[in-house]
Amino acid sequence: MGNTNIKTLALALNLSAATVSRALRDSHEISAETKQKVWALAKSLNYEPNPSASNLRSQKSKTIAVIIPEVANNFFSQAINGIEEIARKHGYHVLIYQTHEDSQAEVDFIRRLLSGRVDGILISIASDTSSNQYFKDFVGQLPIVFFDRIFEDIDAVKIITNDYESAYNATQHLIDCGCKRIVYLSGLGNLLTGKKRLSGYLDALKNNCISFDKKFILDGYADEDENRREIKNVLITQNPDGIVSSIEDMALPCYYACKELSLNIPDDVKIISFSNLKTAPLLNPSLTTITQPALEIGEEAANILFKILNKKDIEINETIVLKSILIKRESTAC
Amino acid sequence: MGNTNIKTLALALNLSAATVSRALRDSHEISAETKQKVWALAKSLNYEPNPSASNLRSQKSKTIAVIIPEVANNFFSQAINGIEEIARKHGYHVLIYQTHEDSQAEVDFIRRLLSGRVDGILISIASDTSSNQYFKDFVGQLPIVFFDRIFEDIDAVKIITNDYESAYNATQHLIDCGCKRIVYLSGLGNLLTGKKRLSGYLDALKNNCISFDKKFILDGYADEDENRREIKNVLITQNPDGIVSSIEDMALPCYYACKELSLNIPDDVKIISFSNLKTAPLLNPSLTTITQPALEIGEEAANILFKILNKKDIEINETIVLKSILIKRESTAC
Repeated sequence: MGNTNIKTLALALNLSAATVSRALRDSHEISAETKQKVWALAKSLNYEPNPSASNLRSQKSKTIAVIIPEVANNFFSQAINGIEEIARKHGYHVLIYQTHEDSQAEVDFIRRLLSGRVDGILISIASDTSSNQYFKDFVGQLPIVFFDRIFEDIDAVKIITNDYESAYNATQHLIDCGCKRIVYLSGLGNLLTGKKRLSGYLDALKNNCISFDKKFILDGYADEDENRREIKNVLITQNPDGIVSSIEDMALPCYYACKELSLNIPDDVKIISFSNLKTAPLLNPSLTTITQPALEIGEEAANILFKILNKKDIEINETIVLKSILIKRESTAC
Repeated sequence: MGNTNIKTLALALNLSAATVSRALRDSHEISAETKQKVWALAKSLNYEPNPSASNLRSQKSKTIAVIIPEVANNFFSQAINGIEEIARKHGYHVLIYQTHEDSQAEVDFIRRLLSGRVDGILISIASDTSSNQYFKDFVGQLPIVFFDRIFEDIDAVKIITNDYESAYNATQHLIDCGCKRIVYLSGLGNLLTGKKRLSGYLDALKNNCISFDKKFILDGYADEDENRREIKNVLITQNPDGIVSSIEDMALPCYYACKELSLNIPDDVKIISFSNLKTAPLLNPSLTTITQPALEIGEEAANILFKILNKKDIEINETIVLKSILIKRESTAC
């Protein structure tokens, strides 16, 4: 039975791979009863731990990995700075890996990390990820903390912001300024973060008795020029008086599209965007933003990871919410 | 003589460590005569190659590292994208490491990379680096390409931009617009890049018979608020009519300082900055920039590294210059 592994044990016992892995490591998070069951089966099937995985636990790399979609995004670059600040205090190096929203690259990369390159992972998942199955198997093999873009039903610590409430407030702010035809710029694929933001927008419209047209929702592309063209198209065909951009990458294409159509922001169309853009106050006009506590999210995620690494008592399945703030500027002036 | 290493061989033969290392590897770049000398001495001193270094050559990690000061800088984030594009074509992953201008972190990190984590390194050195000695010893142990922030006298490929000419042209542009009291914002420590930019500024003043005052030169700090305060101070005490910012990080503090002093850009003071800021055309007023070909520098650096990794015939000590462009916008309007 040389090919008995954590997965086969988990399957036989109807437990998650993470639970089996923790039981084998004699983790305090697992009940004595479960541990006994796991150990008994492991023994009867002659389970041998993966040598590289054991090596990984005995020998610290003093390095953690941060896996994110893009560094050229102010939310992520600020979150990284928060992570590095904490890592430095613990004497750790931080490796950064960009997925460019490609879940296959994400999985390939994590597989390599299992060979002992790093002691733990902080991750914000790619927007094209369609299944959490890989991560479900993976959790428990290496300490991991999810931030901003997470899976809801996974056995790990997750640090997020109040996406639903933020998008609701952004939409309400436009409504309060008199907007009635509000376009929503999407762009987070099937991610929970994106779904929550969209719900916030929809509920704000509903609660204000503003009718919704699905032509008002525009999906973002990876290509900036394509985004600008699509936004121009929606400005021409739908004649909106307000735009909620759910991602930073869509905010500047909005400005360019309005410029090209000689539309005045905020007189013709008001714009609010989720954004950590440092230049938001200096734009012409300055941009009203939903600003995420990026640095704090990074710090919190790293703090939790180091608690796990140092085997501090910690609730392993927890969702921590840090609030975003709405900063009113000229782009939504009434 | 168990402690004979590449350094001792190099010292004894009056050769660089890189040359000795390449000779031991039977590199085509080293003459037969030199190889004979190195091999003879290595044999007589019972030189044993470092096992982890040998392992590193036999087993590919299919990963390269990019070592840069900051990801939250548009030049570097664009350069990284160029590097990743090329790496993807070769089936390689890219790890990013931020030094935050700390040369000790830089050296510590590179030391760890020698254990075989990566096949090669692309680096833009930290501004507090005072000596190239570590890199001189290191070159030859692992393929390395320098970009943007380089050492001049090191035996490696370097990709840079035309810093002297760009700063000269920036200063000349302000002079052509009527500026006579031009402040220069520094911030690259003792780096060659910074020295060349400063020379370009000084020579432009000299060739236009504009007197120079060292009070016109302001050194940048890591802290943005500190930069804004210092710029405000120089605006008050020196009453400049033009500013050349040699780094992107100083451009926005200039805008804030002018705002706080109610100085109009460009009427009271004109501003030009080295910058790859995506929002430069959308600022109020739009910012005149010296824009570096960041993506192309990244691509070129990665292409060279992969040529080295694939042992293609390549000139190992070469400096490649890609030109920056001056983009005139409202902040220097005459």
